[in-house]
Amino acid sequence: MIRQEELSISTAGRGTVDLTADIQQAVSRSGIKSGLCHVFLKHTSASLMLCENADPAVRRDLETFMSRYVPDGDPMFTHTAEGPDDMPAHVRSILTQNDLNLPVVDGRCALGTWQGVYLWEHRHAAHRRNVLLTITGD
Amino acid sequence: MIRQEELSISTAGRGTVDLTADIQQAVSRSGIKSGLCHVFLKHTSASLMLCENADPAVRRDLETFMSRYVPDGDPMFTHTAEGPDDMPAHVRSILTQNDLNLPVVDGRCALGTWQGVYLWEHRHAAHRRNVLLTITGD
Amino acid sequence: MIRQEELSISTAGRGTVDLTADIQQAVSRSGIKSGLCHVFLKHTSASLMLCENADPAVRRDLETFMSRYVPDGDPMFTHTAEGPDDMPAHVRSILTQNDLNLPVVDGRCALGTWQGVYLWEHRHAAHRRNVLLTITGD
Repeated sequence: MIRQEELSISTAGRGTVDLTADIQQAVSRSGIKSGLCHVFLKHTSASLMLCENADPAVRRDLETFMSRYVPDGDPMFTHTAEGPDDMPAHVRSILTQNDLNLPVVDGRCALGTWQGVYLWEHRHAAHRRNVLLTITGD
Repeated sequence: MIRQEELSISTAGRGTVDLTADIQQAVSRSGIKSGLCHVFLKHTSASLMLCENADPAVRRDLETFMSRYVPDGDPMFTHTAEGPDDMPAHVRSILTQNDLNLPVVDGRCALGTWQGVYLWEHRHAAHRRNVLLTITGD
Repeated sequence: MIRQEELSISTAGRGTVDLTADIQQAVSRSGIKSGLCHVFLKHTSASLMLCENADPAVRRDLETFMSRYVPDGDPMFTHTAEGPDDMPAHVRSILTQNDLNLPVVDGRCALGTWQGVYLWEHRHAAHRRNVLLTITGD
């Protein structure tokens, strides 16, 4: 069986959005009990990550890390048409993920206890982001 | 259905090669309308990325970024058998991707408007790179 | 066909563990000849990588690289509950992979000649890590 569904996610600008519950609900709706759930972000200035889900400081520290090594307005960048966060957003996207596969067991994504799925918005402005789920299995 | 096909890609040394059209054609040949296209690069000194496809400056700036943090000939590296770009190529590969999954909808990879699939050659010499596609679905 | 199997991997603290043989044996046990083998690490302070498999210096140099840019005890990090290697482990995990898909051809993962699959433990203490394999195909 193959089930595809698109999620439309609103971001409030740079920062993370927890997609875990949305994805678990889509897997439940699919009726698939065993297989894989593919998560695909159709953008190049935001990304996906499997991140620790208990302490929000982890995601703040990840932002601090990226801000140190991929700072907005870095003069090494020439692609600046959309502003100082344009090229840093692409670099952050390349260093993280735009697609993930999650195992489905007993009708749910079998994440580790401390794993959540996050969309990481890298632009400062709010955006609407499309995430295409492809759930396959029995 | 499962269809597998190997692409042989010639690179001209360090830089990017747009694989998007080759992949779309393989999906079309497969006859699969709905599912996933897995792209696998069988090498550890080149990589794959989903990157902005409109302005070549984005890929030049990515090269600039990698050259700053993973410079050729960095004395921290001991694995230098094939020259100053040997170990930097492995690091760049680890920081990006060697496999991608792309959703297939209506017989085509459902990429975002600004997404292209690129092979990123990290060695300075020209290479022939093998990319194995596995297309699954209905 | 879908076959799922969980591997339990003991690490000796920071460093790499070669999973290639374990994965090849699981693919063989599955009886699947053509398709994909998904490898999923259920943790956020270790990661997976497809790495050069011939010279151990490559993995030592990768460790050196990460130690330079994501050093233990860096004062920029606030999430330090489990010690100076806590947040660096999460950053290293985000910069590499927690899931991989490997093509299966003729009943084996069709890796490149120089590719191995490694678990990279980022914590200094020994850990037991769970890796969930989902093998799909014919």
